[in-house]
Amino acid sequence: MIELADARRTLLAACPSIAPVALPVARADRCVIVADVVATHAVPPFDNTSVDGYAVQAADTVTATQDQPVHLDVLGSVLAGSVADRPVEPGRTWKVMTGAPLPAGADAVVMVERTSARAGSQLGAAGDQVAILAPARSGAGIRRAGSDVRTGETVLAAGTVLRPAHLGVLGSVGAREVLVYRRLRVGVLVTGDELVTDGGELRPGQIHESNRAMLMALLVRANCEPMDLGVASDDVADLEQRLRHAMAACDVIVTSGGVSMGDSDPVKAVLERMGRLNWMQVAIRPAKPFAFGVLDGPSAPVLVLGLPGNPVSSLVSFELIARPALRHMMGHVEPYGPSVLAIADEQLGRPLADGRTAFLRVLSRIGPDGRVHVRPVTGQDSHQLSASASADALAEVPDDRTVQAGEDVLVYPLS
Amino acid sequence: MIELADARRTLLAACPSIAPVALPVARADRCVIVADVVATHAVPPFDNTSVDGYAVQAADTVTATQDQPVHLDVLGSVLAGSVADRPVEPGRTWKVMTGAPLPAGADAVVMVERTSARAGSQLGAAGDQVAILAPARSGAGIRRAGSDVRTGETVLAAGTVLRPAHLGVLGSVGAREVLVYRRLRVGVLVTGDELVTDGGELRPGQIHESNRAMLMALLVRANCEPMDLGVASDDVADLEQRLRHAMAACDVIVTSGGVSMGDSDPVKAVLERMGRLNWMQVAIRPAKPFAFGVLDGPSAPVLVLGLPGNPVSSLVSFELIARPALRHMMGHVEPYGPSVLAIADEQLGRPLADGRTAFLRVLSRIGPDGRVHVRPVTGQDSHQLSASASADALAEVPDDRTVQAGEDVLVYPLS
Repeated sequence: MIELADARRTLLAACPSIAPVALPVARADRCVIVADVVATHAVPPFDNTSVDGYAVQAADTVTATQDQPVHLDVLGSVLAGSVADRPVEPGRTWKVMTGAPLPAGADAVVMVERTSARAGSQLGAAGDQVAILAPARSGAGIRRAGSDVRTGETVLAAGTVLRPAHLGVLGSVGAREVLVYRRLRVGVLVTGDELVTDGGELRPGQIHESNRAMLMALLVRANCEPMDLGVASDDVADLEQRLRHAMAACDVIVTSGGVSMGDSDPVKAVLERMGRLNWMQVAIRPAKPFAFGVLDGPSAPVLVLGLPGNPVSSLVSFELIARPALRHMMGHVEPYGPSVLAIADEQLGRPLADGRTAFLRVLSRIGPDGRVHVRPVTGQDSHQLSASASADALAEVPDDRTVQAGEDVLVYPLS
Repeated sequence: MIELADARRTLLAACPSIAPVALPVARADRCVIVADVVATHAVPPFDNTSVDGYAVQAADTVTATQDQPVHLDVLGSVLAGSVADRPVEPGRTWKVMTGAPLPAGADAVVMVERTSARAGSQLGAAGDQVAILAPARSGAGIRRAGSDVRTGETVLAAGTVLRPAHLGVLGSVGAREVLVYRRLRVGVLVTGDELVTDGGELRPGQIHESNRAMLMALLVRANCEPMDLGVASDDVADLEQRLRHAMAACDVIVTSGGVSMGDSDPVKAVLERMGRLNWMQVAIRPAKPFAFGVLDGPSAPVLVLGLPGNPVSSLVSFELIARPALRHMMGHVEPYGPSVLAIADEQLGRPLADGRTAFLRVLSRIGPDGRVHVRPVTGQDSHQLSASASADALAEVPDDRTVQAGEDVLVYPLS
C-alpha cells in the first residue's frame, strides 16, 4: 500500500498537459486563466456621475440652504451614453443621469433629492432653472476615471479561478475572449456483466447500474465536460473497442469497476495491453484500489483513471484522487480543495486498524459558534451509497484511532 | 426604504409556481425532488460477496491454520452477474469474485489472501482443491441483501437537493427518471445606450458592457438555464419588443439597469406599461433599488426581476434578493443559503450612517482554528467591480456600526 499523499503526487506528475484556449468570456466561468489580463484603458473611462442630479461648480453652492437656495440655469440633460456639448460655467448646471459623463467645468454633482425644480417645468430642459438646496462638496457624486481600473493595471492575475464577477471585469475592460485552461473532455466508462441499465427487472445476480450518472455529475461539478461512454460488459474486445473509440474524443477516460486484484478484472487486462498502467493500493478506506496510466491517443496522450466499482469507493476515489488530477490539468494551483478543522458532534469510530486512513462520510452544519460540526452518516460500508448520499463531507480518521465526540477532526467538503 | 427581510418576503410571496417535471436521473443534479422516492426492491438485491475469495460453510473452517489448512473441493467460479448452479455443502466451496451472489448453503467468504490454491492449477475450476489457511467467522465477507436499501424504504425524501451520490442511489433502485422542480429558464436583458458590446473603441460617454456574462454565470451557478436576451438600447419600443419575445420562452426575466428613480428609466417605463411592477428601495448598501413584477406571458406568468445596473449592485442584488426567489421557485426549502459567523481580520467600516445595512465584499479564508476569517477587499464603491471580483463573501455590517478587527461578523458566501 502507498500513502494517499504519495499516490496523489505520483498521479499529478504523470498528468499530460493541456494546451490553453481562448474562450468567449461568457463561457469561461470556473476556468483558470493562463496569463495576466492587463487593462488597456481605464474603468470607468471618464469621470461620470454616481447619482441622478445636477452637475455644478461646487463654489456656486457654498451658501445654498433649504430656505435660501441657490438658483442655477439649466443647460440641458445628459443621459448615460451622451455627452454635454458645452461646459458648466458659474451660475450654470447640466442635469445628469447616473453614469453620464461629467460635463467639463463641473466639479460636483448635487443629488436630485437636494434640489427643487419649478413645478410643471420640463425637468432638465435648457432654459429651466433649478434651486440647489444644500452645498455640494467638490468631488461629491462623481466617480473618477480609473477609480475601478487604471490603464495598465493587471486586473486578473494568471492562475485566477474565474468567478462571475471576474467575467464582468473582463467585460468592463473590453475583453471578449480570455485565455484559459479549457474544460477537460472526460469519458465515463462503467463496466460489469452484472449491470442493468434500463431500469427493468433484475435477473438473479444482476444489479442496477448506479455509478455513471453519479460520476458524470461529479465531473460537471469539477468543471469538466463529461462524455457518456456507456456500460461495457466484461468482454475484453468490447471494452477495448469502446476505449479506442473514446481516445479520439477525450482528454481523460474515467473507468468504474474492474480495478481490484481479481484474476478476471477485464479493465485491467485491456488497459495493460494498451499501455503502461500504474496499479496502486492506496492506504485509505474506502477506495483502496486505484489505477492510472497515460495512453497514446490518436492526437494527444489520454489519461486513464481507473476507479473502483463499489459506489462509495468510486465517489471517494473521485474526490480524493481523480478530481485533484483533473484540477491540476485544468491549471488549478490548489488541486486538492479546502479542508476545515471541524468538531465531531458524535464519535467517529472505525471498524479496525488496517493501516489505512479512514475517510468517513459525515454530514456537516455550521454552528452558532462559527465552527463546522459533523456527525457520521449511518452505514459506512463501501456498498452503502444510500447512507453516504446524505453526507456532504469526508472526515479523516487516522488508522487505529477514534475521534471522540467534541474533538477536532479534519474534514473535506464533498463537491 | 424597506428592510431586506421584508423585501424578500414580499418577493417570495409573489413568485409564480412552476410545474414539476420528470427528468432523466443523469440530468437532475442540483434539482430539488418533489416527492419521496421509495425503493421497490432491496439494494443489494441479494446476498453477495464483498471480496474475491471462497464461499464456504464457516463450520468447515474452524480448525484451519497456516500449518494445518482445511482442504475444500472447488465447485467452480462465480463472477459478478452470474449465479452458482448448486449449493455449497460441507467440504465444498465456490470461488467467488467481488459482487457475485453468495451461493446457497454458504455462510461466509474467505478472502483469497487467506487461501492457497495448488500452483499451476486453473484457479477456481471445478475439480480443483483449495487450502483454507484461517477460520472464517459466519457472515464474514458477505454483504446482505437490503444492507444498503430495504424494500419499501424512502431512499430520498421530498425536498432533497440532489447531489451526485443521490443520482447513484436513484440508479441503484432502478429509477431512470426523477420528479423534480425543473431548472428555470431565465432571460437576461441588459439595458443602456452607453453600452458597447463588441469590445471595440469607446466613443465619448460609452462604456463596455459588463453585466451580461456575469449574470448568466450567476444563473448557471444557481442551477438555472440562462438565455441571452441581448443588450437593449434605452428605446422603449426596442425594450418592449425584446421583453414580449422573451416572455414566450422564459420563466423569469432578469433585467440589469434602468430601475433607479431617474425620470428617464426606460425599463421602468416599459414594465409599468406591461403589468403591475413593484419598485422597492431596499435598506441595503449597495443595491438599494430593486423592482419585480409578474407579467402575463403567452402560456404562463413570467416573473420579472429588475436589478440595478451598477455592476456591484447587480451582483449583490442577485445574491441577496434574486437568487433566493429563483431557489424558492425551484423548490428549495432554504432559499437564502447559509451564513457563517466569521472573524474580521481587519476593521469592516462603512462610509456613513444612511439607514442601510452594508454588505461589504470580503475575502475569506479558513483559519487553523476552524473559523472563517474575512478581510474587506479594497474598493467598496458600487462601480468598483474589479475590487469586488476578488471577494468570495458578503459581510453584513449594520447601519452606523464598524466591526473592529477580531470581532465576529455575519458572512454570506457568494455563489
